Amino acid sequence: MGFDGLGRRDMLRGMGVGLVASALPNAALAEALQSGRKLGYAVVGLGSYAVNQIMPRIKDCEFARLTALVSGTPAKLEKYGSEYGIPKTHRYSYADYDRIRDNPDIDLVYVVLPNSMHAEYSIRASQAGKHVLCEKPMANTAAEAEAMIAAAKRADRKLMIGYRCHFEQHNLYVVEQLRAGIVGRPTLITAESGFYAQPGQWRLDRPMSGGGSLMDIGIYSLNAARYLAGEEPIEVSAMESTDKSDPRFKTVEDRIDFQLKFPSGVIANCVSSYSSGHNAFRVTGTKGWIGMEPATPYEGHQLWARQNWKTEQITLPPARKSQWAGQLDELAQAALTGREPKAAGEEGLRDMRLIEAIYRSAREHRAIRLTA
Amino acid sequence: MGFDGLGRRDMLRGMGVGLVASALPNAALAEALQSGRKLGYAVVGLGSYAVNQIMPRIKDCEFARLTALVSGTPAKLEKYGSEYGIPKTHRYSYADYDRIRDNPDIDLVYVVLPNSMHAEYSIRASQAGKHVLCEKPMANTAAEAEAMIAAAKRADRKLMIGYRCHFEQHNLYVVEQLRAGIVGRPTLITAESGFYAQPGQWRLDRPMSGGGSLMDIGIYSLNAARYLAGEEPIEVSAMESTDKSDPRFKTVEDRIDFQLKFPSGVIANCVSSYSSGHNAFRVTGTKGWIGMEPATPYEGHQLWARQNWKTEQITLPPARKSQWAGQLDELAQAALTGREPKAAGEEGLRDMRLIEAIYRSAREHRAIRLTA
Repeated sequence: MGFDGLGRRDMLRGMGVGLVASALPNAALAEALQSGRKLGYAVVGLGSYAVNQIMPRIKDCEFARLTALVSGTPAKLEKYGSEYGIPKTHRYSYADYDRIRDNPDIDLVYVVLPNSMHAEYSIRASQAGKHVLCEKPMANTAAEAEAMIAAAKRADRKLMIGYRCHFEQHNLYVVEQLRAGIVGRPTLITAESGFYAQPGQWRLDRPMSGGGSLMDIGIYSLNAARYLAGEEPIEVSAMESTDKSDPRFKTVEDRIDFQLKFPSGVIANCVSSYSSGHNAFRVTGTKGWIGMEPATPYEGHQLWARQNWKTEQITLPPARKSQWAGQLDELAQAALTGREPKAAGEEGLRDMRLIEAIYRSAREHRAIRLTA
Repeated sequence: MGFDGLGRRDMLRGMGVGLVASALPNAALAEALQSGRKLGYAVVGLGSYAVNQIMPRIKDCEFARLTALVSGTPAKLEKYGSEYGIPKTHRYSYADYDRIRDNPDIDLVYVVLPNSMHAEYSIRASQAGKHVLCEKPMANTAAEAEAMIAAAKRADRKLMIGYRCHFEQHNLYVVEQLRAGIVGRPTLITAESGFYAQPGQWRLDRPMSGGGSLMDIGIYSLNAARYLAGEEPIEVSAMESTDKSDPRFKTVEDRIDFQLKFPSGVIANCVSSYSSGHNAFRVTGTKGWIGMEPATPYEGHQLWARQNWKTEQITLPPARKSQWAGQLDELAQAALTGREPKAAGEEGLRDMRLIEAIYRSAREHRAIRLTA
């Protein structure tokens, strides 16, 4: 069925819009597996996503391990350093950060900081000679994203963005089935992402977040619309709805719903909300539809398809590797073999440019035509 | 629970955006029920919707009966006249149509013709002193719709538009639950309507249909967005997608998806398609969602609600009256009591104006702000 190993890579090839897939298996990977040598990750920023989702999954990687921690909070370095057996020499404050250059146990850096710090800490990691995995959104602006790509290129190091859904089997399965024609010719994509944002978080503070729900959760709708369509949008139109009397929304938007038009004629209706829960993707075509709800949870994806006037739930076998291990290993494999990773910096930059177009469309109350 | 009788009317009051509900019960209705006297309908246009859906349901009405037929096809008049016991004196060709004026057995006229004929045949019915129920879309243009309203007003007769969902218990239940706060504060409405239009029908011929999927099926999304929101939109934005090489779409659009923004901040993402099947409404709010899929079938509605992180299907008791009988009786009751019917001409006109704004938005690639 192709949910792991080479089959997964085949599916990724379909998913990675505009990206080039390299031939595998590779001698470097075989050697790494045989020798048991794994590349070392420094995790930068010990917030809840890093400590609850990422760090516990690194042990499941075939090609990577956790070797260093970076945090501004000494107590966190102490707690997680001791929990994960990271020696004091491999624990860094932000002031110390550039010293990762001298640590040969660090090959890869995973930047899990607030959005406004992505560009700076990714660029400094590239300059320290490390490969970078940076959480999405890639940066606060497309200009920052371009600088990150340039820095990685100058350093001849890889840059990848944390689109975990590119490594999640239900999403991969849906993409594979779409390419195989399960819905006939696709006509409509709906991609809905939202949650009720609690007050008092950095995500509600524009200088830290760069924007509201679109930067944080709507980006799932945006990115999914692109990988479900398998092409790049040519027009975007957006409508914002924010209750400015809600103290959560002093500096960022609550809801911004947008339409994307693709060259094939597919239209995507996308939802981005900080005031209501949404987690569903569906692609409808001339012969039926396939969709997930929830579509992007940490676990518990549910998948349905409608064909021949009948809706059926589809259950996939357990994944061999979690979406996090898949993602973490992807950068390690790219580093080992010299190929570009899936979800490379250019993928993040595409979303950043679209995010800027979505904001502009809502602001100017008009559709924005896009150029490739 | 209020799914029939007066309870139903209570629900309708919530649904009828901008319409005034009169007090019931009424002496005229009580007398009509007691005497067994029912108002007589002439059905104008014996196409498949009239003969398969409407005519078989008239017998279920409390206040109306079928008394006359109008068709351009003598064989149809013969077949259905004999099937429904309509005497030859009560069968009319289009040339004869104005003679309905002289038939006291005709109180009400149901216009089920192609869209381009709605205005003319409704206006002539008003001029003949009859109350009119006209299928949706009300007309080809808002200007025609205004002329229909004016004609009914001049004749002091009622005018109603065939929005059967206003009389369908699942739709009424959803509206009732929304007003009672089942989803908290509503934030997003999705309303998706579409089917694969077979070639060779009048609906694909602009002079007859006035437009493509939006006039025919997208109007369900539009009208539902309004009754689910319970308010009128202030901004509309639309994107069209039509493969002009498809011979079906020489004169009309295939797909036109649109967003509506309402004064409360609710946004509706609406779908209208002639190339894929869609039939779902959902309203999401701060506390969960409620929705139907299918939402507007002839029968077999399915209803779900999500509250407290749990999605549950809701099953309603069988309806006392079908959506068609409810609709047909509504005009009869309005005629008997002198009140305005639900889904009056003004309701159809609102949709016509919005349809024109949707087309304009798609054509001009910009949002259209609306005035009340």
